[in-house]
Amino acid sequence: MARSWLDIDPSSDFSLANIPFGIIDTPEDVTRHVGVAIGSYVLDLKELAHRIGANNLLPFGAHSTPGVFETRTLNAFAKLGRSVHRHVRERIQDLLVRMFLPMDIGDYTDFYAGYHHAYAVGVMFRGPANALQPNYTHLPVGYHGRASSIVVSGTPVRRPVGQILLDPKAEPKQPTVAPSRKLDIELELGCFITKSNDLGHPVSIDEAEKHVFGYVLLNDWSARDIQTWEYVPLGPFNGKNFTTTISPWVVLADALEPFKTKGIENPTPLQDYLKEKREETVFDIQLEVDLTTPDGNTTTITKTNGKNLMWSFPQMIAHHTLGGCPLRKGDLLGSGTISGPVPEESGSLLELSEGGKRVIQLNGGEGRTFLKDGDTVTFRGFCVGKEGERVGFGECTGRVEGA
Amino acid sequence: MARSWLDIDPSSDFSLANIPFGIIDTPEDVTRHVGVAIGSYVLDLKELAHRIGANNLLPFGAHSTPGVFETRTLNAFAKLGRSVHRHVRERIQDLLVRMFLPMDIGDYTDFYAGYHHAYAVGVMFRGPANALQPNYTHLPVGYHGRASSIVVSGTPVRRPVGQILLDPKAEPKQPTVAPSRKLDIELELGCFITKSNDLGHPVSIDEAEKHVFGYVLLNDWSARDIQTWEYVPLGPFNGKNFTTTISPWVVLADALEPFKTKGIENPTPLQDYLKEKREETVFDIQLEVDLTTPDGNTTTITKTNGKNLMWSFPQMIAHHTLGGCPLRKGDLLGSGTISGPVPEESGSLLELSEGGKRVIQLNGGEGRTFLKDGDTVTFRGFCVGKEGERVGFGECTGRVEGA
Repeated sequence: MARSWLDIDPSSDFSLANIPFGIIDTPEDVTRHVGVAIGSYVLDLKELAHRIGANNLLPFGAHSTPGVFETRTLNAFAKLGRSVHRHVRERIQDLLVRMFLPMDIGDYTDFYAGYHHAYAVGVMFRGPANALQPNYTHLPVGYHGRASSIVVSGTPVRRPVGQILLDPKAEPKQPTVAPSRKLDIELELGCFITKSNDLGHPVSIDEAEKHVFGYVLLNDWSARDIQTWEYVPLGPFNGKNFTTTISPWVVLADALEPFKTKGIENPTPLQDYLKEKREETVFDIQLEVDLTTPDGNTTTITKTNGKNLMWSFPQMIAHHTLGGCPLRKGDLLGSGTISGPVPEESGSLLELSEGGKRVIQLNGGEGRTFLKDGDTVTFRGFCVGKEGERVGFGECTGRVEGA
Repeated sequence: MARSWLDIDPSSDFSLANIPFGIIDTPEDVTRHVGVAIGSYVLDLKELAHRIGANNLLPFGAHSTPGVFETRTLNAFAKLGRSVHRHVRERIQDLLVRMFLPMDIGDYTDFYAGYHHAYAVGVMFRGPANALQPNYTHLPVGYHGRASSIVVSGTPVRRPVGQILLDPKAEPKQPTVAPSRKLDIELELGCFITKSNDLGHPVSIDEAEKHVFGYVLLNDWSARDIQTWEYVPLGPFNGKNFTTTISPWVVLADALEPFKTKGIENPTPLQDYLKEKREETVFDIQLEVDLTTPDGNTTTITKTNGKNLMWSFPQMIAHHTLGGCPLRKGDLLGSGTISGPVPEESGSLLELSEGGKRVIQLNGGEGRTFLKDGDTVTFRGFCVGKEGERVGFGECTGRVEGA
């Protein structure tokens, strides 16, 4: 059981595992309303709903009842049903053990090292003959991302508004400003830097491992329709910079060391600055993605593995600093979307839905191509050792809010 | 005259404007060597050269004489000639009034709002029919840059090593790892943000001006050969992230307000979120670029004007935040390269040399297509009002060091 930042007596009936509901008033607010008990404290839900917004306590389906914590009895709340009760209780537990962004992030760089993802997306846009650009196997392709919009797991993800082409084939091209209709996820690993290099001083591949602090799961939320229109010729911008979610616990480099394995073979002879001494350079991490609908039905929409990378983080570090660019303590590198070799193991809805042409069937009968408002996406990742020892990341989760 | 951080008596013969040379010894170093007098202090040049490197005191042409400050008389130094004396004196003055990066920069975004530059470079790469991408007149195209390698004017610029294609037409493509042979400048304005917006909360075009702190000159040093090979499909990376130089003094938004003028007309009807109330949205700033060779010959290689932008900074802010991306206090936006409508007014060597095909003639008889080691590039920018009042940026300068 998680511990709260509140000082809760372990012998209290009203532990974080309980969260009983009742009717209170306070010297500041003498109208009766709803509260919960936690240890020897009372949490005023009317006041909390005012401060953080009732919609941050209630599930998406109950957003039309924001006044439910302001009533004189619990009847209105009771009537909302068990799934709402569960949601509110879990939200309160979350609030009491809130996690924060674990690092001050200076710069964030997102790579594209997931070969199967790069290839599958390339086929969609350019056909199989030109799926990968000629540079792909020569260097770890990457671009600078946006540090200011990186958030910790659990932070709501607002659907971005942007310029999109509703009819991409019409000439002249006429974009519309609208909420994205192709909101997607990207399943990635994130790597935090612990040791800075000075401007003008590259990090050699043999030293690169010493610059790694640890790893997180990373969801590079992407608005495909915004991205498609904006990204030429300088790369993704508003299609990516609205939110990037990372898991809250940094798994140290040493904890993952036993799970190193071979990555995807690169047919191209490497430049010296990218040559590693070991063959095992990426991680055997089991990765899973759950999609939970507003109704509460959860489906595991993909399972894949962290080893599906053609470039390792040490290679990314060596390449990033080759021209002298300084990486600083706290900088974050993303691996790029991790997809397996078969379509079911894809790390994005773009691939799972074949560019929106195939409906992904969910438990409960709904289907998806891209995300709907109220959907929650949760990444999990863990390694299992030879003797069954497990090293995991916990969750990287976010719920989509309307634009 | 600049003031030093040293406490110099105004009546001293040995002001910052003097810097006389002499022979000294010290309790720590009893061998006679070279020093200079500043106020009531003596600066030990032998010790200084040890600490910062003699090459940081001497000009490029005199790098073979690092021991010149360790001799028992000034004869060796005297023999180096007047241009070396001038360089060392100015370096010492610089060191004594050193400027620093004026802001803690969170994120840096570089736009592409210089229409003539975008068009000219587009013609080079894709021909006149496809010079501009269809999105260009619909939104201010931009990409995320690298904050960690932004430096203040005067910081040396090390020529980056990177993957380059020596023979771009050979198949299969075979990159070489080598120092860039196409090191270039980009003449830009930088804009610092003073007011943050929260994640998920766009800044409206009418409010955008309030988010601006002030402006600097910005040199987005670019390695064209590295950039050409790496930039597909996700945009510029190592070709840009080795150094970005800004001028040290932030000119406040109010100081530039009287110099607002019309930018380049955009033939495309704007989306509402990009519509400004005034027609005067960019600045009438006279911009000049000097190139100084290692021999000390200076040539003004371009003159242009800050009004050569199709998008204003308020438009960039409105677009950047449209999907909810937070801009934070201290974030930096670059305008993109500013070139005038005719080739002589270009803000990059790529344009001035027509992609390396035309030699730019310099005073003293040398020519350039791209930068050589030891070259110094200096940007200047200033506005002149109706009554002759001048509002200027000072200098944004950097000297190229070998890889």
